[in-house]
This record gives sequence, C-alpha cells and structure tokens, in this order.
Amino acid sequence: MSTAWTSRYAQRTKGVKSSAIRELLNFTQRPEVISFAGGLPAPEVFPTQRFREACAKVLEKQSQVALQYGATEGYEPLRELIARHIARYGIKAKTENVLITSGSQQALDLIGKLFVNSGDRLLVEAPTYLGALQAFNVYGADYLSVPSDHDGLRTDLLEAPLRSGPKFMYVLPNFQNPGGTTLSEGRRHELVLLADRYGIPIVEDDPYGQLRYEGEHLPPLVVLDRENLRRDAGYSIGNVIYLSTFSKTLAPGLRLGWIVAPPEVISRLVQLKQGADLHSSTFGQMVAYEVARDNFLDEHVKLIRRVYRERRDVMLEALAKNFPPAVTWTRPAGGLFLWVTLPPGMKTDELFKTAVQQNVAFVPGDCFYAPNGHQEEAMRHMRLNFSAAPPEQIREGIYRLSVAVKKQMDHLSPHPVATT
Amino acid sequence: MSTAWTSRYAQRTKGVKSSAIRELLNFTQRPEVISFAGGLPAPEVFPTQRFREACAKVLEKQSQVALQYGATEGYEPLRELIARHIARYGIKAKTENVLITSGSQQALDLIGKLFVNSGDRLLVEAPTYLGALQAFNVYGADYLSVPSDHDGLRTDLLEAPLRSGPKFMYVLPNFQNPGGTTLSEGRRHELVLLADRYGIPIVEDDPYGQLRYEGEHLPPLVVLDRENLRRDAGYSIGNVIYLSTFSKTLAPGLRLGWIVAPPEVISRLVQLKQGADLHSSTFGQMVAYEVARDNFLDEHVKLIRRVYRERRDVMLEALAKNFPPAVTWTRPAGGLFLWVTLPPGMKTDELFKTAVQQNVAFVPGDCFYAPNGHQEEAMRHMRLNFSAAPPEQIREGIYRLSVAVKKQMDHLSPHPVATT
Repeated sequence: MSTAWTSRYAQRTKGVKSSAIRELLNFTQRPEVISFAGGLPAPEVFPTQRFREACAKVLEKQSQVALQYGATEGYEPLRELIARHIARYGIKAKTENVLITSGSQQALDLIGKLFVNSGDRLLVEAPTYLGALQAFNVYGADYLSVPSDHDGLRTDLLEAPLRSGPKFMYVLPNFQNPGGTTLSEGRRHELVLLADRYGIPIVEDDPYGQLRYEGEHLPPLVVLDRENLRRDAGYSIGNVIYLSTFSKTLAPGLRLGWIVAPPEVISRLVQLKQGADLHSSTFGQMVAYEVARDNFLDEHVKLIRRVYRERRDVMLEALAKNFPPAVTWTRPAGGLFLWVTLPPGMKTDELFKTAVQQNVAFVPGDCFYAPNGHQEEAMRHMRLNFSAAPPEQIREGIYRLSVAVKKQMDHLSPHPVATT
Repeated sequence: MSTAWTSRYAQRTKGVKSSAIRELLNFTQRPEVISFAGGLPAPEVFPTQRFREACAKVLEKQSQVALQYGATEGYEPLRELIARHIARYGIKAKTENVLITSGSQQALDLIGKLFVNSGDRLLVEAPTYLGALQAFNVYGADYLSVPSDHDGLRTDLLEAPLRSGPKFMYVLPNFQNPGGTTLSEGRRHELVLLADRYGIPIVEDDPYGQLRYEGEHLPPLVVLDRENLRRDAGYSIGNVIYLSTFSKTLAPGLRLGWIVAPPEVISRLVQLKQGADLHSSTFGQMVAYEVARDNFLDEHVKLIRRVYRERRDVMLEALAKNFPPAVTWTRPAGGLFLWVTLPPGMKTDELFKTAVQQNVAFVPGDCFYAPNGHQEEAMRHMRLNFSAAPPEQIREGIYRLSVAVKKQMDHLSPHPVATT
C-alpha cells in the first residue's frame, strides 16, 4: 500500500532491515518453544521488592521532581553513583564525564550520530554486536572486520586495518556478544598501544563486565589507555569512550545505560540527546538510583552471578553430553552467551528450520557480521543464550537442538554421523 | 582540550548548538527568579496518588514483564488505549497504527531519520517548535518558513512554497508552541486540500490538543485529510502523520509519546527505533497504562484545564494591567504559552538582559524561527509560559517583566514612554 510517505524515505534508511532476531520473536514466544535466541536476563532475579520500596520512596518524597522534565545529562545523584561505581574497576571518571542514556542502544545511536559520516569505516570485531551494526548502519557506516578467537579480537591482525584510517574501533572486551570471548590482558595492552600509535580512538562497550563467573577481572581499555599514555589529568583527555548499562544488573525494562567520555564529547552528545528524546525518564532514573544505592547493586550482582554461572555450566555440560564431536563452542568466563561452531558445510540458517520443528530456537551467526565481514564463515555459527531459561529447560533445549544438529548433519554427510 | 575524538565529529553535527532555552536553565533555577521560560507542566497537578497505586499494582502482579525487555512498538494495552483515546477526537486508528516513542521528541527524531536527506526542504510555520528544528537540523534539513497570524498558519501564502516541493509540512494546529495560536477550521480544510493538490504530506504535532480552555474542539488534520479524500479504508492510506504525548496530561518525566501513521510507515519507524533505543521503558509504559486506564486520563485533564485556564487568565490580566499599550500578545484558547510582540526597534535578546536584573525570565522569540525564517521580525517576540508558576507568581513576574520592558523602551525611544 502506498501513501505520499512511501516515496519519501531518506537515503540512509534504504539498507535498514528488521533484525533477524526481531523476526524470530513470534516463533520464540510460543509456550512450547525453548528459546536460546534472546538476550534476556532471567526475570526471576529482578529485585522486585527493592523496586517496590524505591518507587514508594520516590513518589512519597520527590514525586514533583520524578514526574517532571529533567536535565538532558541525567539525574545528578545517579551520575555520581555511576562515577563511584566504575571507580571500583579503575575508571576515574567525574560526574561530568557521565551521560545517562536510554539504554546502551541509545549510546550507540548517539555515537553514530556524532561521529559517522556516510562512507566512514569503523573497525569492528567479526562477529560483533548486532545492535551496534544497526545503530551505525543508519549513518552510512562501512566496516573493517577483524576476526577474533578464544582470546578475543586478533590484535596481530590489526595494523593493516588501523593504517587505513577507520573513524574509530568498536570493541566488546568482556564476554563478548555474541562470541562469549574475553579479550586477554596482553591483547588489551596491545590494542591501546596500537590505537595510540595510529591515532584511532576506541568505543569500549561493556554491558556484561560485572557478570564474571570465574577468573580475575581484567582492566578496561579506558584504564589502560590512560596508564599507557602516562597521562594523569584524569578522564578528560582520554581516547576511549566507555559504555555500560543497568540492563544486565538491575532490569532492562528501565532502558538505562551510560556513556563515559571526555567532557567536550559529553557536551556534544548532550546536544544530540536533547534533540533525540530530551532526556531519559526522570522517574526511571530516580527509581534506579534508589534501587542501586548503598551497595545494593554490587550485592545483587553476586546473586545474578550465582544463577547465571549455574546456567552456563548446565549448558556446557548438556552440549558436551549431546552434541556430536565435530561441533565446538566457546566457554565464556561471564556474560550471557556462548558461540557454537558447526562443521564446514553446515549452515545455521538451514539448521534453524530443523530446530523450529524441534521447538528450540537460537540466532544464526550471520546476523553478527558486518556486511563485508566473513559471511561464509558466519553461516557456521550460532549464538546461544544461557541466562534466560532455567536449568531443566536448558538441558531439554540443548537435547532438542542436538537432535536438529544431527538430522542436519545426516542430511549433509554421505555417511550418517554416529550419535553420542 | 582536544582528544582523538574532537577532530572526528560528523558533518551533520556542525550546526548543532545548545538551545538558548538550555542555556537559560542555570539562571532560571535560582530561587529568586520567576521563570516564564520553560514549558513545564504544573507539578502540583501530577496525579501522584494514582501513580503510587499504579506502580504498586504493576510490581505486585507483573514485575517480571515490567522490568524485562519489551516490544519495540510499545506495550500492547497502552497502544490500544491510545487508539481508543484518539478515537474520541475522530481519529480512526488501529493498534497497528500506533508506535510508542520516548516522548514526542523521539517521534520528531525518528521522522527526521526516516524522511530527511541532507538539503531536503521542510515547510514549517514561522515561528515553530524549537525541538522540531533541533531534531530535523541533525539530518541536514533546510526550511521553507510560512508566517502565521492569530488564526494560525497563513494558508493564503502556502501555494508558492508547496509548489517548490518540500518533503513534508510540519504543523502544530492547536495552541501552537510558541505562538499560542490555533489554526482555524476554515484554514484546516484549506491546508489538507492544498496538501492533497500538491502531494505534500503533513506531520501534525498535537501535544496540547486536550488542553482547551474555551471554544469547541476543532477537527485534527488527520481526520480532515481522510474525509477530504473520501477514503474510507481507515488510517492506512492517510497522508498525515499524527503525533501526541502524555507529557502534558500525565507527566513529562515518563518520556512517553506516540506516533499515529500508516502501517508501512510504522514498520519503518519501528526498525529505526530499534536501533535508537530498542524500546521505551516497559515499566514506564505499564505504569502509564495503569494510570490512564478506566477514563482517568480524561477526568484528570479536566483538573489540568481548570488550573491552567486560571493561570492563563491571570497572565492575560496582568499583561493588560502592567504592559505599555505598544506591546501586544496572543490570547491562546488552550495550551501552555502566549506570544508577546514588542514595538518595532525593540529586541528581546537585549530585553532579556534587563529582565535578568529584575529576576524574571522568558524565551527570546528568535529561537523559534528556522534559519531563513524572518529573523528580524523574530527579535520582537518573546514566549511566555503560563502553566508552571502559580497565580501570585505570575502576577509578580509579569509586573517585573513590565518594568524591564519599560526600561528597555525608555532606553530606545528619544522621549520617555508613559507608564500605565
């Protein structure tokens, strides 16, 4: 059906497609389906009682502020809380370095808006976060994709793409979405050194950093950048923009994330955010502050770690028990996802159709690659989420998925594959 | 201070400046200042008790949904409520025609993103809503400005600019911000006729439509468009995109607005919103639904009308009592603002400095004109908000402002102006 509008779409929206994950939603919402497709936190661990108390308190004492327009930068006490919170991870930010965004997704959109001219190349990991590609695509980004392995982004392959002058690098160092991999400490040092040498700034996206289930926390790039450059004037002259969110620690339904950046960048982002949504919900920010304060956030994260670690372990165990030996997967030290690699010749978009018959869902790997980013390789992967489903469903879902994988392999191979 | 980032701003952000209103904020927040500068609803009329009950109910019964990720289109019961709500104003929309946005400001941003190529001309009123200019500027919009008078946009001046083929018209028919004027019924019919004749679609922004203090509600353009074109297939083939918000009726702190558009446009906007912030706060939407439902919204609007009508009358009376006869102003039938015109030669940016000394604030008129939109004329105007301050403050503030006006006139004129 056509209206006066349909002939008038702007150039930039020509390439915008609904994400495959979005298309999956109808299927995955059927009650008989076990879905590893989403990236949903476990709703059982939402701190509902704490939210109840926070709402009551905010509306009892500060309703006239909470329901009113607020500052574009965000609710001051929440910005301060975030600055204190990230200080524990070595990030020395002041309140003025923190901009509250409507989820990390808005952070990505504002960064695209501020920095990306049509045709600009961005250096991204292959695979990388789908939502970042969606945000940057609208501004006409092109991509330089650099492969990653079990230690994260392959820094040994970085020099040539850096030399060609990308606008910035976009990197998820911790428990990457979708790979589940973590950038090793050695590579972190290398990455900031190379970034400095070639003068290419970094967007460090860290939604999952707190959700580590084993091993030691590794220093964020934003911290290494400062140390490496022997600058001690604080964040203001940093070359790394750091992003994080409350979506994985408190609740995604609030849509609250944040950007940490030099003040002059924050001031530009504030102007763009003003035009984009004026500010994030005052009420939501004040409630988040009341929920997170007095160390509740850190205490609550311990519970989430326990629950997700168990689910990760259940999924790893079920994979080992059910999957044919030709299939491999990452063993994430944290986060929400693991990444499965199928034998050469198999395609996860075809596997998906078989999985649908078994009432189990995942996201085919090709969604996570930039347009010129190793698409053939991409088709052999799938992303599995282990945070949303309880353990017994994970076991059953991985069993169903293994049935689909074996069927698909039988279909492919001249000789039937032995089942475990 | 410069970083690797500061040399990397995208072309589109070159013209982005902090709005003058934003710059005023520091001044207007001093306790001794009476501000007519903002566009704030009166916090005294926020339905706090209803919000308390709504939060308790949502967190009691649906916390696992409310705190989780949600659909980009918005919370289904809220979309249905909006479709029913606007039906009372003659707008026959289905749920699928409604997209929930993070305030009307996001609606403007998404429309700019979907339709505006760099260099596209948009037809706007002179003066027009500052936030729309901010949203569209980022996408490189140029403007065709058409003057308005006490009956709104001068439709007798529309043909030449329409013939030159703007991408769309952006119009606020009800109690316009900043003019306070309402597009007459005759001109509404003319406008949709002309739009149809020249094939130029319309964005109808209606944040204040429900806040009418006298006279009869006039039909929205989106309704006339359908009638005019004798189409009866419902909204799906309309040429008008309609915007509104809960910011002026429930609470701006929620950041919840909506777009009503043909389904194929909604589907494009949904894709862009997904990249912009995934979705608006699930919790906020569910709370808004619980607050608004069972006719509470309509009942509550009656209270707001009573309070704002009184404030408007107090301001009109104080202006008549204190201001020199050479100054004129609009008499809005609704909304939040009135528009003052000073004698030729006076400049409101200079007046502003004098007003600051009197501890009273307003927004100088030139903020509300597109770059090529009658700037000299613009300098003679100021926008006054009458919703935020209680009556006694309005009286005192208008008195202070009259002192500033008279000082400024004395300063200008060779002969002192008689005071009233």
